[in-house]
Amino acid sequence: MTTTPLGETTWWDGDAVGYIDQRRLPETIARERATTVDAVVAAIATLAVRGAPAIGIFGAYGVALAARLLPGAESFAMAAARIREARPTAVNLAWAVDRTLAAADPLAEALAIHDEQRAVDRAIGEHGLALMPAEGSVLTHCNTGPLATAGEGSALGVIIAAHRAGKKLHVFVDETRPLLQGARLTTVELSAAGVPATLIVDGAAAATVRERRVACAIVGADRIARNGDTANKIGTYGVAVICAHHGIPFYVAAPRSTIDFSLAGGQGIHIEERRAEEVRVLGDRAIAPGDVAVFNPAFDVTPGHLIAGIVTEYGVARPPYLESIPELAYRPAFAFVRS
Amino acid sequence: MTTTPLGETTWWDGDAVGYIDQRRLPETIARERATTVDAVVAAIATLAVRGAPAIGIFGAYGVALAARLLPGAESFAMAAARIREARPTAVNLAWAVDRTLAAADPLAEALAIHDEQRAVDRAIGEHGLALMPAEGSVLTHCNTGPLATAGEGSALGVIIAAHRAGKKLHVFVDETRPLLQGARLTTVELSAAGVPATLIVDGAAAATVRERRVACAIVGADRIARNGDTANKIGTYGVAVICAHHGIPFYVAAPRSTIDFSLAGGQGIHIEERRAEEVRVLGDRAIAPGDVAVFNPAFDVTPGHLIAGIVTEYGVARPPYLESIPELAYRPAFAFVRS
Repeated sequence: MTTTPLGETTWWDGDAVGYIDQRRLPETIARERATTVDAVVAAIATLAVRGAPAIGIFGAYGVALAARLLPGAESFAMAAARIREARPTAVNLAWAVDRTLAAADPLAEALAIHDEQRAVDRAIGEHGLALMPAEGSVLTHCNTGPLATAGEGSALGVIIAAHRAGKKLHVFVDETRPLLQGARLTTVELSAAGVPATLIVDGAAAATVRERRVACAIVGADRIARNGDTANKIGTYGVAVICAHHGIPFYVAAPRSTIDFSLAGGQGIHIEERRAEEVRVLGDRAIAPGDVAVFNPAFDVTPGHLIAGIVTEYGVARPPYLESIPELAYRPAFAFVRS
Repeated sequence: MTTTPLGETTWWDGDAVGYIDQRRLPETIARERATTVDAVVAAIATLAVRGAPAIGIFGAYGVALAARLLPGAESFAMAAARIREARPTAVNLAWAVDRTLAAADPLAEALAIHDEQRAVDRAIGEHGLALMPAEGSVLTHCNTGPLATAGEGSALGVIIAAHRAGKKLHVFVDETRPLLQGARLTTVELSAAGVPATLIVDGAAAATVRERRVACAIVGADRIARNGDTANKIGTYGVAVICAHHGIPFYVAAPRSTIDFSLAGGQGIHIEERRAEEVRVLGDRAIAPGDVAVFNPAFDVTPGHLIAGIVTEYGVARPPYLESIPELAYRPAFAFVRS
């Protein structure tokens, strides 16, 4: 099943890990092959591959590749550790790497993770669509569609499922500086799915919620703590505060693999800080003086008390999250349907 | 008095209106001459000249230019009307055009408006500096410094005055999409003034306020209603909501000429919507699909109840604004000191 006109965002390619270089979208659909562990690590670290579930799948394929290239147990384990640490915030990467590393057949495990994610996306969409208005506008931030996962996405999967179920949704898409995943990726995915969408700058979100009577916001997640505190793309916390101020619900949609059951709260989440050039330079154009100091956290943490519901493949977790989230740890593995 | 290493942002140039083309900063300091009414209107409409007080001064010089080029009363009045309507939201433009149009000697009046603005900026800085912490971080949005006015600025004038008075301020600067006035202009002005500053994307404001213990935010204004409702650069309302959520004060600094005493509240403010390409294209690089719909309001309105104080040249107006603002209409004209 191809869920996007772009095709899969990552795939096993015989003796390499295939991926779309998302940095070059929307201008170019560049299909690349990572043939070494270095290339796998670089693709994750540079955000050529991004989206918490997608980097989990890509990382799992990377471990399968390492198993072929490095038959020695020690060098294999070291390679897996390097992939695991290519980005620190999304827990799906560590989860998928560890699972693949422990498997008897790493490639079979990576393929299974990929297949499961397709079914997980479908279930997230089905559980979440009831949260969407029958008719109205919703706001989203960053990219959570097919490019970011394996099926139709997490937050975008919910929106697309609601659209397909006949709800008349209009989506306001935050462009999501600095890397513009909303402008470059989410707009393309919504267009492909036939969902009406309007792009806004991140600063316009507050006025848009008020002036255009936005019904709710829904976003993805990179790591969720037991109390519902959620790390997601920088700017998410501001969206949640805006929703709280306007009395509209703010939802998170993410697979269970995004939940870090070892974390009591968001203060334990390591927030990756990225290079100043991501903010100072766009393409090859300087948009700020080259010597200005920059604070460039890739993520922020939205406290659980601002989140009205967290949609996983098991249903919608509701506050109090300290009760509804830990319970998810004990659910049976998600039964997947091969697509 | 030159208040910026860039020199004045606009000036009378013998038989033309001089200005710095702010679109080309920070790469190039392009000093241009508008020699026709068309050129004056275009410079305002394209944001070559921007900043509410600066476009007032530039518009006044434009009227003086029109008086020379078009001695006929009717064509002169029509030219002034075109300048007055080059941008709809900032009230200073209409105020300065009307004042110049009514004067016996338009050029002398424009020069007086310019001189007054320098003194007004100084007074705003002096009145506002008490609001700044003795030591700590403040947040600002868009550009309100020398490039936007005539002296040291409105909100930035307060920050610079506080810095000069020995307060140890660190400024977080929102880059201010779509046109990046914060990244391109405010960083340059703060650097020139010796004030430590850190650039952030607009979406990082909420996390920055929380993680870096920001003490307050201060911004400029394009139009203020009698109840304190304030139109300012898109993104301002979101900053005010973030401040309210974190219990820190949000201030506005602007000359009295920014107050529209005819307006009871912000719902009467006409918000300019600008071209989709401002969001979809940066420089000559497409950052979103060319056919995606865009909502691009240039300004938003922050309700007066979120504003802790409005700094004008007459002092700090405090809530309830329906009492403190109308009173300002009856103050004597600001006594200016020639600089």
